[in-house]
Amino acid sequence: MKQISSVQNPFIKSLVQLQDKAKARKQSGTFLIEGQREINLALKGGYTLQTVLFVPEIITNAAVQNMVPETVACIEITKEVYQKLAYRDTTEGILAVAETKSLALADLNLSKNPLILVAEAIEKPGNIGAILRTADAANIDAVIIANPKADLYNPNVVRSSVGCLFTRQIATDSTENVIAFLKVNNINFYSATLQNSTSYHTQNYTLPTALVVGTEATGLTQAWREQSTSNIIIPMQGEIDSMNVSVAAAILLFEAKRQRGF
Amino acid sequence: MKQISSVQNPFIKSLVQLQDKAKARKQSGTFLIEGQREINLALKGGYTLQTVLFVPEIITNAAVQNMVPETVACIEITKEVYQKLAYRDTTEGILAVAETKSLALADLNLSKNPLILVAEAIEKPGNIGAILRTADAANIDAVIIANPKADLYNPNVVRSSVGCLFTRQIATDSTENVIAFLKVNNINFYSATLQNSTSYHTQNYTLPTALVVGTEATGLTQAWREQSTSNIIIPMQGEIDSMNVSVAAAILLFEAKRQRGF
Repeated sequence: MKQISSVQNPFIKSLVQLQDKAKARKQSGTFLIEGQREINLALKGGYTLQTVLFVPEIITNAAVQNMVPETVACIEITKEVYQKLAYRDTTEGILAVAETKSLALADLNLSKNPLILVAEAIEKPGNIGAILRTADAANIDAVIIANPKADLYNPNVVRSSVGCLFTRQIATDSTENVIAFLKVNNINFYSATLQNSTSYHTQNYTLPTALVVGTEATGLTQAWREQSTSNIIIPMQGEIDSMNVSVAAAILLFEAKRQRGF
Repeated sequence: MKQISSVQNPFIKSLVQLQDKAKARKQSGTFLIEGQREINLALKGGYTLQTVLFVPEIITNAAVQNMVPETVACIEITKEVYQKLAYRDTTEGILAVAETKSLALADLNLSKNPLILVAEAIEKPGNIGAILRTADAANIDAVIIANPKADLYNPNVVRSSVGCLFTRQIATDSTENVIAFLKVNNINFYSATLQNSTSYHTQNYTLPTALVVGTEATGLTQAWREQSTSNIIIPMQGEIDSMNVSVAAAILLFEAKRQRGF
């Protein structure tokens, strides 16, 4: 078994780059996954692992072998090296280098009556993670990020999604292309917006449906408002007229699920 | 106008204690509010301000006088003092010392057909803040924290609630007393739990209703499960069977709002 104990090791340095830089992830087509549950979900979701790095004092070699396919290279690392690479406080003692997946709209494999969440230009990795978590709970077909502002394989997205990045189909593209995709596939889409909108609970989401949410700060762009099947609003009756985007997505998705009888 | 430029000033030191220590807030019956919007919401919510501290380079004396009642003492502080006291990055340049309110159940002033959120033993200030934000959006009667694990006037609760701490009636008490309060007031209560529960959307929330949520880690205690009108569950059909408590609260509250016709 290969062992690495130096944070100066060139391979470890390349992994630090993967954590820190979207460009490094894009060039290599790889990213890091931290933690047992997350790695298991990635394997279940069909992600290919290249290498697993583990701290033998925390997780045994046998446990690691049991977890990952035989073809995956395993490397023992020291706690010091682990801490250099890990983003989380909790020391699970295991990390994997995984290959990114295609994020092309054309590669989405949708059911006959799909339910999709579209989120436009969400910047905060924590919000993307929370959205993916809700998307998993609602077991929807896919999450599409229009006009992406953050790299989906950013370690903070991976972490805050608690592995739900791996359980849903995900695509990213320009707003123009996402709208074209929805239209070609005859998917009704409902844009959550404050302007000229009707209460979300009055619409029918039992047909092929995409629910579209934007950022708290600027909302959805004009194209979404102009071309939607309907514009919808979650009535807010308090003092504050804003809602966290992942909370809004949850309310909309579960109303659709309710209408569809779960 | 009084001016303070030293972080060693005894009054400033006492305010640092207010930020840092629940005990200091309890003993003095005061806490700190940061930011214009938050201070305005607190005034609107009937909170009494004792003192306002502001940085004249950031917000003018005239603007401050316009904002707060004449009886409130105003103190000019330097940026250095402000940074010592402020929790946020954004430098709004204004802070207020406010009096805490009663958190007694007996002081809640409910409508004839109340909708209430009960959250048990929520520890993370960020989750409490997010719950309060949703409670504001849904314009419910009150939020009750059973078996509180965090001080509601913790600066992180104030901050993450974006001022919604001040727009809702809030009470805290033991689970036993909260259940007794709901029963005496003939309020149906629905406990979100995984055991022996029915899907949340099959219940009727148009009568006086409390929706009860617990922590992600341990769920609700037995008393809530045994004495509820019904135990309810949000069906989760993905790989992960957990949901952030503020997201769960939002789904439940907006289903109740939907049934009540908003």
